[in-house]
Amino acid sequence: MSATAQPDVMNFLNEVSSRFPAAISLAAGRPTEQFFDRLHPGALLDALTRYEQHALRSADAAAVRTRLLQYGRTAGMIEEQIAAQLRIDQDVPAQADRLLVTAGCQEALALCLPALCPDPTDVLLVCNPTYIGATGVAAGNRIALHGLPEGDVAQAVEQSVAQLQREGRHARALYLIPDFDNPTGRVLDEAQRRAILAVCARHRIVVLEDNAYGLFRYDGAAVPPMAALDEAGSVIYLSTFSKTLSPAFRVGAAVLPDTLFGDRAARHALWENLVQRKSYVTVNTSPLTQAIVGGLLLAEGGSLRNWIQPMAGWYRTNRDTMLDALQSTFAQLSDAIGWNRPAGGFFLSMDLPFEFDAQAVTDCATRYGVIVMPMSFFALDASQNRRIRLAFSAMTPPQIRAGVAALGGYVAQRLEQCSKSEMHAFAEAR
Amino acid sequence: MSATAQPDVMNFLNEVSSRFPAAISLAAGRPTEQFFDRLHPGALLDALTRYEQHALRSADAAAVRTRLLQYGRTAGMIEEQIAAQLRIDQDVPAQADRLLVTAGCQEALALCLPALCPDPTDVLLVCNPTYIGATGVAAGNRIALHGLPEGDVAQAVEQSVAQLQREGRHARALYLIPDFDNPTGRVLDEAQRRAILAVCARHRIVVLEDNAYGLFRYDGAAVPPMAALDEAGSVIYLSTFSKTLSPAFRVGAAVLPDTLFGDRAARHALWENLVQRKSYVTVNTSPLTQAIVGGLLLAEGGSLRNWIQPMAGWYRTNRDTMLDALQSTFAQLSDAIGWNRPAGGFFLSMDLPFEFDAQAVTDCATRYGVIVMPMSFFALDASQNRRIRLAFSAMTPPQIRAGVAALGGYVAQRLEQCSKSEMHAFAEAR
Repeated sequence: MSATAQPDVMNFLNEVSSRFPAAISLAAGRPTEQFFDRLHPGALLDALTRYEQHALRSADAAAVRTRLLQYGRTAGMIEEQIAAQLRIDQDVPAQADRLLVTAGCQEALALCLPALCPDPTDVLLVCNPTYIGATGVAAGNRIALHGLPEGDVAQAVEQSVAQLQREGRHARALYLIPDFDNPTGRVLDEAQRRAILAVCARHRIVVLEDNAYGLFRYDGAAVPPMAALDEAGSVIYLSTFSKTLSPAFRVGAAVLPDTLFGDRAARHALWENLVQRKSYVTVNTSPLTQAIVGGLLLAEGGSLRNWIQPMAGWYRTNRDTMLDALQSTFAQLSDAIGWNRPAGGFFLSMDLPFEFDAQAVTDCATRYGVIVMPMSFFALDASQNRRIRLAFSAMTPPQIRAGVAALGGYVAQRLEQCSKSEMHAFAEAR
Repeated sequence: MSATAQPDVMNFLNEVSSRFPAAISLAAGRPTEQFFDRLHPGALLDALTRYEQHALRSADAAAVRTRLLQYGRTAGMIEEQIAAQLRIDQDVPAQADRLLVTAGCQEALALCLPALCPDPTDVLLVCNPTYIGATGVAAGNRIALHGLPEGDVAQAVEQSVAQLQREGRHARALYLIPDFDNPTGRVLDEAQRRAILAVCARHRIVVLEDNAYGLFRYDGAAVPPMAALDEAGSVIYLSTFSKTLSPAFRVGAAVLPDTLFGDRAARHALWENLVQRKSYVTVNTSPLTQAIVGGLLLAEGGSLRNWIQPMAGWYRTNRDTMLDALQSTFAQLSDAIGWNRPAGGFFLSMDLPFEFDAQAVTDCATRYGVIVMPMSFFALDASQNRRIRLAFSAMTPPQIRAGVAALGGYVAQRLEQCSKSEMHAFAEAR
């Protein structure tokens, strides 16, 4: 399981979407646009002005103007505020002096993966399937991937380490979305997290904990993030404001542990490595969008929990709508069709009794008016060929119901074909 | 001449600046802050609103809100406007469908260099000295560098190609700042540009033309950019709004030629490669800062020539102030001290009769209160050890006069030491 990810997934989906603009997209894992009115231009100005007023407490007007409009510190401008928000909202023990503000979580991945896996024998461990933002960085930087089979992640890491060692290679990092995984929607429980941390600490594997969806939990108790459970100094925590505020700010963060496996100098060296890499990628994250994020955090008293309430409610309704629609559409259709019930996030995964590939996306869009995401697009091998990812974040409940009904039509037709060809095969075999 | 660039230059200078906050910095090539008031928060809102109004002509309010706040097209949102501005202001034959909006010129370099030099035998040609933003990307992506000695660039390229071929390696790209080079201030004349284009076309070497300073010409007639002279399809033109508007927007662009050495499909494949790489680095450039840039371009009728007039006047005065101060400080001091008279840009280069290294930076800052940039920081070898770069962009005329006078004190002391040690060496030798 060491293939590279399919690189043209986004292009393919954009093309399908533009060829079938009327189709309902259950493919895009975008945040809802229902609450964008809260970020109208005047509100953005208010946020910017609020940040400016705050900055004026400790600097004169010219210095503040310069901070907003000149080249800025590569590591960031609002690290204190982001660190505080992560402590308050996520229980992540973040500190400003080991936090790097990035152009979204994606830049954090683009900086961390090459820094952690510099040598040709270095390997990045990923779940299979996993988010293409991580595998795409690996492919672009010629970093070898090793996919972990589904099931017990800690055990899979242990086995992978042994296998790689026999090959003269080394697992250096594990990319993971413990909460409401993209693409599967699965959550790792606390015991699993602790077991993964133990095995990673033993083998000095850095865990890249991507927590884009953590605040969007719709039921059940929160599980502590791995960064909060980390005692060995193995977790780099990746955060983003793309889902809580807006993807347009392009503001995210990477938080390093206090020590790297007990070594504070090694952590500091890694931090400097990341800062230097960033200076050769984006120089610094836009201080203007940082200031707007900073102003919104000030207005919210440092926490985004209230801000996201209406969004979380919306997503919960969408998830419930999708689960209801799936139940009424597919319950009687086949025993071989199943799906999970994620407690949060934007996605669920669905098992089908037939393969669902790029051609199926086009057929389904053309003839049934719904676009869904083959799980194989996130996979390193053929193991995901009979699964799809359904996103419930960006659509409205009526769209979700119509989309699932349309998917039902496609699936019924495929099942009919399957049974016909099965009968045909049966007849041929006689 | 195939060493890697010194990676910690920026850190070193930041440290020196923070250790000696009262020192005058002739090191930082930042734009002046004198005109930042034009971009106060209200003006930014006006620009955003202007862009919004413009967008509303062809889309409804919800679609425009989505365009500003949702994940956006990876290639950009304001390509049409940037392409038009480059055609009007720089005579660059830019078209939106082969223009990629980037997080400043730096991201364009971070995307282009690995795309053009994917193999271990691929080599990037650079002038020596050259801008560390380019050599830093090469170092971070393990791209081999080959420095061109000063003098005739076309001839140096021809010789380097032959030398590399004997080593089984291939020059794939040439990074160049033809106008007001950073760090030297030199301008390539039209004959030199045409000769470079001819040799690069012959060997299928892509020219990366970085034109951050082109609009800041203070005297003499403009030389056409290489992208305007390019008939073979060899020039990728790199632009940025960091010097014309503000570095805080983090908006720049890469413009591909119509064909890549006559091959339109190859150009299209390169464009798709760059877009895909960008999707794994920053996803897309902030649509909010793009919209502000777009609104400012609308307000200026599509050209930045008027906008930059006061800045260009300021820089011209600064350059003249620096040249006068150099003349009065150093003219009598030594025949071995010289400097160029750049017709534009932010920098000039100065030759000294002694080595000027990192220790010299600290000594000069500590004892004379001025920070300057050793040219060796931009060099691939020892050839630049007796030169410095002086930036006249960010300081005021009184600061420039005081800074040059302080540098004069340091140089006088070094010359005295030199002659003492020369006398000493002379005495020893007897």
